[in-house]
Amino acid sequence: MRVYVQGSRRDVRVPFREVALSGDNPPVRLYDTAGPADSPPPPVRKAWLAERGAGTQLKFARAGLVTPEMEYVALREGVPVSLVLDELAAGRAVLPVNFNHPECEPMIIGKRFLVKVNANIGTSAVTSTVDEEVAKLQWATRWGADTVMDLSTGKRIHETREAILRHSPVPIGTVPIYQALEKVGGDPTRLSWPVYRDTVIEQAEQGVDYMTVHAGVLLRYIPLAVSRVTGIVSRGGSLLAAWCLAHHQENFLYTNFAELCEIFARYDITFSLGDGLRPGSVADANDKAQLAELKTLGELTKVAWRYDVQTMIEGPGHVPMHKIKENVDLQQEWCHEAPFYTLGPLTTDIAPGYDHITSAIGAAMIAMYGTAMLCYVTPKEHLGLPDREDVKAGVIAYKIAAHAADLAKGHPGAQAWDDALSKARFEFRWEDQFNLALDPDTARSFHDETLPAAPAKTAHFCSMCGPKFCSMKITQDLQQYAAAHGITLDEAVAVGMTEKSAEFVASGGEVYVSG
Amino acid sequence: MRVYVQGSRRDVRVPFREVALSGDNPPVRLYDTAGPADSPPPPVRKAWLAERGAGTQLKFARAGLVTPEMEYVALREGVPVSLVLDELAAGRAVLPVNFNHPECEPMIIGKRFLVKVNANIGTSAVTSTVDEEVAKLQWATRWGADTVMDLSTGKRIHETREAILRHSPVPIGTVPIYQALEKVGGDPTRLSWPVYRDTVIEQAEQGVDYMTVHAGVLLRYIPLAVSRVTGIVSRGGSLLAAWCLAHHQENFLYTNFAELCEIFARYDITFSLGDGLRPGSVADANDKAQLAELKTLGELTKVAWRYDVQTMIEGPGHVPMHKIKENVDLQQEWCHEAPFYTLGPLTTDIAPGYDHITSAIGAAMIAMYGTAMLCYVTPKEHLGLPDREDVKAGVIAYKIAAHAADLAKGHPGAQAWDDALSKARFEFRWEDQFNLALDPDTARSFHDETLPAAPAKTAHFCSMCGPKFCSMKITQDLQQYAAAHGITLDEAVAVGMTEKSAEFVASGGEVYVSG
Repeated sequence: MRVYVQGSRRDVRVPFREVALSGDNPPVRLYDTAGPADSPPPPVRKAWLAERGAGTQLKFARAGLVTPEMEYVALREGVPVSLVLDELAAGRAVLPVNFNHPECEPMIIGKRFLVKVNANIGTSAVTSTVDEEVAKLQWATRWGADTVMDLSTGKRIHETREAILRHSPVPIGTVPIYQALEKVGGDPTRLSWPVYRDTVIEQAEQGVDYMTVHAGVLLRYIPLAVSRVTGIVSRGGSLLAAWCLAHHQENFLYTNFAELCEIFARYDITFSLGDGLRPGSVADANDKAQLAELKTLGELTKVAWRYDVQTMIEGPGHVPMHKIKENVDLQQEWCHEAPFYTLGPLTTDIAPGYDHITSAIGAAMIAMYGTAMLCYVTPKEHLGLPDREDVKAGVIAYKIAAHAADLAKGHPGAQAWDDALSKARFEFRWEDQFNLALDPDTARSFHDETLPAAPAKTAHFCSMCGPKFCSMKITQDLQQYAAAHGITLDEAVAVGMTEKSAEFVASGGEVYVSG
Repeated sequence: MRVYVQGSRRDVRVPFREVALSGDNPPVRLYDTAGPADSPPPPVRKAWLAERGAGTQLKFARAGLVTPEMEYVALREGVPVSLVLDELAAGRAVLPVNFNHPECEPMIIGKRFLVKVNANIGTSAVTSTVDEEVAKLQWATRWGADTVMDLSTGKRIHETREAILRHSPVPIGTVPIYQALEKVGGDPTRLSWPVYRDTVIEQAEQGVDYMTVHAGVLLRYIPLAVSRVTGIVSRGGSLLAAWCLAHHQENFLYTNFAELCEIFARYDITFSLGDGLRPGSVADANDKAQLAELKTLGELTKVAWRYDVQTMIEGPGHVPMHKIKENVDLQQEWCHEAPFYTLGPLTTDIAPGYDHITSAIGAAMIAMYGTAMLCYVTPKEHLGLPDREDVKAGVIAYKIAAHAADLAKGHPGAQAWDDALSKARFEFRWEDQFNLALDPDTARSFHDETLPAAPAKTAHFCSMCGPKFCSMKITQDLQQYAAAHGITLDEAVAVGMTEKSAEFVASGGEVYVSG
């Protein structure tokens, strides 16, 4: 059930998903990305935007001003608003909300906050429709996507994006060069700054909250990347490489970066500085091309900050486990602690069809080391466009990775969810366990496959071990035995309990359920 | 295709799965657990056993004698036989092969070797049949299970195990206390050393290669565990706790451990010293109960080694990421570097239905830190008994975790598989990519869902990005352009290539595929 926590003003109403539990157990409140039941969602930020003058969240934070958005995310994360203010002001976090996306429920991305998950959707030239993409958006946020990137290519890009934005309670990101390429007939050598700039403004007016900009793909880095095992695997990166080489000019996103900052500042669009030279195989991880670009992204971060533009940095990709930490450490150092936003990374290349898993491993680790947002990878990665089930599989795998990292980082309150579920499990409160699960539908249906009857949902065992072998049941019997005899087990063991143990044997049924 | 590498004697024939590739690309040889096509498999070890006197692999290794089994695993792992000898002699690795399981293809478990994966199968009182379990065995080894544990309970335990052993090309493990419990009518207080010992001998005669023995669940540790969030979650652990407390006597497996060692030595059965007090929730991870038992397992390891009995140590369970490394470090220190064999660990409790993923994250990490074998967890964990698809999902997730760790540890040859697949991907050799995949069936079917036609399998793009946006295609064009003009891209950039770039623009079609 969606509940709201009221902030300091009436229209700051922060959503949570409240899970009611049986008996005396208090309800559990979880972070909720699903948006309100109304579709399209109401413009929750409209009044706030009307009240205040222009200015990015970074600008306000630097001035020490708490916006309603900042209060909102503080309540949402369960942290002091001062932490939000400090992290935003220092550039260590971003709060991506375009003035023209009032439907967006504010959220924050930074290493001191809950790890966030992005889901990519979007039409391609080969397949899929606008309605399908809106359905995917709603499906992705239902399962916990914190932001969604619309990576549409092909016809109807503008219309698809409009539909997604007007239906989205979460920030929407794009990669503007995809649409710019459509405008020049698909020929990367015909790309130009004016075409790109106009595309950015078109998308900015629609309300895109953050944009991937591959401004760090410099001419001199291209030879470093082209000779790799898998070359350049970023679409944007390869397009810009083709352009640079064809014109033998520096990347026009780099040379026009200041003007881009001015545009972004006007809408409070957040930079997602793209890693166009990210590795596409474990062989290419942490190589010269990747690291050269990363350093440039650090320089660009400083430029963006001069314009009060919020900035995060994209990261890889394919990275074996022992090279993951270095990615975060260098990114944090070279990019002045701007939030890191990585795609996985995949920890091995051998499992196409299962790259949500190869990458959930890397994602959990890189988030533990300080990455703020994880871009999901679906089972279809490298093979095809994700369908509805793939989107769900990708989001769930990444919510697991993000939450595992929240636990490892000791985020306040993160473990309460685990403890509530484990307690329900130990006490055989099956319905509570299902309702607390990340995916209640799947948990319930898996249980019901082997023990479908209603009584089984109150049974003190499951089909895994059966009644005689249920370790949790036996432990409970031991606890009850101790309680019934008015002793603690500690005492029982300490004083020696030959007599007590004789009783225990005599009572028989207490230690097992007869098969 | 299964191929064999011949050792120093005719009957040492080591299997590999050879993947033929298209064009000039050399075939790739992968470790193969699937067993020979013959079913039941031939007794490959029969002659070796007949030739030599009794003695465990540990005894021979300590004497500096290379058994055919040792040579076999050295060839299988691609390492010098001296490494096998040294690691076995030091107890840092085990080669689990019961004299009565001649069908077993030898394999080695230790931190200097490829990380191994165990799959649990077995009938329960509630569900499943003998034939189903044999089918699960074959299915599990087809997907890469290195060992299989038969955890059957209920009726027909002996018969199920016999069928599994006679069909198994991989070592089979059991937990003898399950069958002992059946023999005493399901009442743990009626368990006894004689019943247990006879059960071990019965299973030893059948050929069980390693056995889980919860000899570290001591009376004084029980109170530490019973008050946890999830108490005792090991079935064996809870049964022994109930027995200890009922009789107020020390665990009979601990008090009779020396006699157990004598039995194990007679058959060369390997100890898998069970972690009966492993944590069942992240709240209970690395607690006093768990660590107290671990220390006792270290003492028992020394005892087992005195009898030349090979020994590995079982580990958790549920452990948040930041507490994983400590598990390996303490186990290695306290248990004298005996191989560690862990169940996951699950890195969060919130995702029943997806615990193959919550635990693959922990498994990959714990293996990177030195765990030698990973016991799989299926999507049904905590909910029900795994079916065929769950077994496959569990094995695949764990092969990913194991291989990711092999890469991170720099195991010789591990990355060749990734590189071969990534090269095939970059060169759009779709069939090679599918054939090299951990699960070719799934990779192929995912690709075909959106681009089913045969020409798509030679296309230089896929449905993810479509032809215009294919970064790999664009990179190839750049490479070809450079090659065609007799320049390296380095030179082109270094000397400035205004002229060259004009040509590049003129040649047009080279940098993109017209949409």
